[in-house]
Amino acid sequence: MSGVTDTAHVLADFSINPMGCEVSTSKYLREAIKIVDESGLNYHTHASGTNIEGKLDEVMIVVRKCIDKTHSMGCPRADTIVKLQTRTDKSKTIRDSMSITKSRI
Amino acid sequence: MSGVTDTAHVLADFSINPMGCEVSTSKYLREAIKIVDESGLNYHTHASGTNIEGKLDEVMIVVRKCIDKTHSMGCPRADTIVKLQTRTDKSKTIRDSMSITKSRI
Amino acid sequence: MSGVTDTAHVLADFSINPMGCEVSTSKYLREAIKIVDESGLNYHTHASGTNIEGKLDEVMIVVRKCIDKTHSMGCPRADTIVKLQTRTDKSKTIRDSMSITKSRI
Amino acid sequence: MSGVTDTAHVLADFSINPMGCEVSTSKYLREAIKIVDESGLNYHTHASGTNIEGKLDEVMIVVRKCIDKTHSMGCPRADTIVKLQTRTDKSKTIRDSMSITKSRI
Repeated sequence: MSGVTDTAHVLADFSINPMGCEVSTSKYLREAIKIVDESGLNYHTHASGTNIEGKLDEVMIVVRKCIDKTHSMGCPRADTIVKLQTRTDKSKTIRDSMSITKSRI
Repeated sequence: MSGVTDTAHVLADFSINPMGCEVSTSKYLREAIKIVDESGLNYHTHASGTNIEGKLDEVMIVVRKCIDKTHSMGCPRADTIVKLQTRTDKSKTIRDSMSITKSRI
Repeated sequence: MSGVTDTAHVLADFSINPMGCEVSTSKYLREAIKIVDESGLNYHTHASGTNIEGKLDEVMIVVRKCIDKTHSMGCPRADTIVKLQTRTDKSKTIRDSMSITKSRI
Repeated sequence: MSGVTDTAHVLADFSINPMGCEVSTSKYLREAIKIVDESGLNYHTHASGTNIEGKLDEVMIVVRKCIDKTHSMGCPRADTIVKLQTRTDKSKTIRDSMSITKSRI
């Protein structure tokens, strides 16, 4: 019996903390953004993680590829936080959510 | 080509925030704990979520079942936070991590 | 004796989950963004929270005002997640972090 | 005008990721648990963080001391996640929350 997590559009956010390696983690971040971009899913990277949307299976494939890449680059430890927003009343996209948002950077 | 996330023992923590429903969420928590317990995986529930460990596939199956159950009980919206700790230098279990921990509640 | 958290520039991210109230939380989000904007601190809101930077005291004053506002609007329960990035090797700003980021939304 | 965050009992959870240092972070964790224990607040450490409760001011003083200690031990970077549960309908303690919880570790 399929549930919401099989069918729903999921608005997710994830960040990976490479640990036990150099203090600068930019090289890991650049590789992860390449993987996210090549996935074809809609995304928006910000200063603390990456918003990404799609079916949960699609999103988790991208997250796992980014974790695997971080380790394959020699990082022995990674803490990954994934936030999953699921709804049954409607589908909300990154663009919807950012329509009422602002910035001053 | 399999990566760390296919083979490694993952120490995870997750919590589900039922939204758009009653202020008390205990009934959703009880059902989720049943699902976690029936999974056979090692786990430890605390005041802010549940530690759970195993292969990433096994862990995510449990998390998804809990999200699906929350929605099937009538809750229209859920925000789920999943924290995944992966390591290539060694495997750390919940019991290892809690060997140096303490409590005063 | 002052520590890093008294003096360092902190790059933070926070999100508030109003619970026990309507399924749409946009009205709470709009009020929170007003408070963030009026704070004068640099910020960038995204689909899953708000990046904000400054001294930790300044950042936490804004986060607390947003939580208080959510409750004063009648929401009985709120789960707030605050991520604090502190460094002693250098100061990183939202703009620095977003210089290597991309979007497709 | 005081808000909920000045007066309410807050149920919090926090974890600190030391970055740019050794892969094993146990020594930072041990020092942090000492600080938590000496604070006198009720707490429960688990495999992925520490539940702690009290007034928000009291909780944040402990969190900041732990971040400062991590940096003073030579760690150049730390990512700290703090989850704050606030309620106006009732006060919930760690013990309340753990009354319906279970473990198999």
